Amino acid sequence: MTLQIFPVHDIPEITRAVDLGGMIAGACQAGESGLQDGDVLVVTQKIVSKAEGAMVDIDPTNPLSHKPIVERESVRILRRRGELIISETKHGFVCANAGIDLSNVARGQAALLPEDSDRSARRLRDRIRAVAGVEVAIIISDTFGRPWRRGVTDVAIGCAGIGAVVDLRGTTDSLGRELMVTEVCVVDEIAGAADLVCGKAAGVPVAVVRGVEPEWLRQGSVHDEIVRDPADDLFR
Amino acid sequence: MTLQIFPVHDIPEITRAVDLGGMIAGACQAGESGLQDGDVLVVTQKIVSKAEGAMVDIDPTNPLSHKPIVERESVRILRRRGELIISETKHGFVCANAGIDLSNVARGQAALLPEDSDRSARRLRDRIRAVAGVEVAIIISDTFGRPWRRGVTDVAIGCAGIGAVVDLRGTTDSLGRELMVTEVCVVDEIAGAADLVCGKAAGVPVAVVRGVEPEWLRQGSVHDEIVRDPADDLFR
Repeated sequence: MTLQIFPVHDIPEITRAVDLGGMIAGACQAGESGLQDGDVLVVTQKIVSKAEGAMVDIDPTNPLSHKPIVERESVRILRRRGELIISETKHGFVCANAGIDLSNVARGQAALLPEDSDRSARRLRDRIRAVAGVEVAIIISDTFGRPWRRGVTDVAIGCAGIGAVVDLRGTTDSLGRELMVTEVCVVDEIAGAADLVCGKAAGVPVAVVRGVEPEWLRQGSVHDEIVRDPADDLFR
Repeated sequence: MTLQIFPVHDIPEITRAVDLGGMIAGACQAGESGLQDGDVLVVTQKIVSKAEGAMVDIDPTNPLSHKPIVERESVRILRRRGELIISETKHGFVCANAGIDLSNVARGQAALLPEDSDRSARRLRDRIRAVAGVEVAIIISDTFGRPWRRGVTDVAIGCAGIGAVVDLRGTTDSLGRELMVTEVCVVDEIAGAADLVCGKAAGVPVAVVRGVEPEWLRQGSVHDEIVRDPADDLFR
């Protein structure tokens, strides 16, 4: 299996209620990669939030004006240090500042996380099937920190058409023994891989990942497969 | 920038003191991908530990016989639940069971983490330059869990020839504003991407990642750039 990852250029600035799936399909078809059945499209959260109108106004002269919104979008505050808040969002994600983001948005605005990123992914998948006639999978990605490792990485906050976690339970390793590590979060690995070609500053909000294992392509849900029940969590 | 990721097949079972760099270079050159300057080779921890003899004997009839080794390899126990231990290793990694692994090793043995994975990566890079005449970067990967997300992903435990964290501080986003999220852990994203073609059960311990940003290719160190100082850590 060889994997190829292409950035998708020429997606215009996204505003509320644009046909995001149609624009992505058009930009992919215009690019050299085209689109094929089985491709995985990684779409960064920001343009999904913009298209869905998940934006709020903030006071551009006050660098802390988004903090009340962070509190409102959180169901549980885990840690505070200075201006940093690590919290659990209403979606069940644990991240900094409830995923609220001021970069790549207009001054005086902040982007919230989509209300239901799995649903957003399903809608994009359906729309791209309708306009381009291809069966793709969608991953919506966002940039999260990690408690014990410096640097951020992109992870999946929603998916459709691909399983979030691939269960290798019961398969055997190369020496014929049952594997002990069993559940691989492939959508997080794919989201991070796509970030390598999108970059943070390059203004490339979508990447195509071609060549993923066809067995992984099923309905999929970040919420159902990745979000850990707080009761199973040792660090909350 | 388009990224390509190839699995490297036909690496034989690794034993202590084999010429791992030479074997990897040979397997890459024999494969369809060849090796080129600027390629990043992701090498899974297990074969590095085997080549370095970082193995210990355990009682194969006792499923808990590696637990004293986990304690010995840890400098701090963060959490216990049943048989699971989350600890900080002497290298500064926070992971389950101090990274000790019983899969893909012979019955009666357990693989420890390499003593210094950055050094292991530098040696592999030097050896591949010597035998194949190419300047590659090396990432040594291992499989870690995450506290708030189900499923495991591969991350970097050592690197050479590539920066671990790319600093976007001071660059501007596509709307000309200074970016707030600045430090991307590209080696973790690359390690995860490589896992997508290696799989856990497929016995493919090396992948070639071609097309990474040339600016990222510098000395690099997981220890110096990723391992978070416990004093900066909100969850230890």
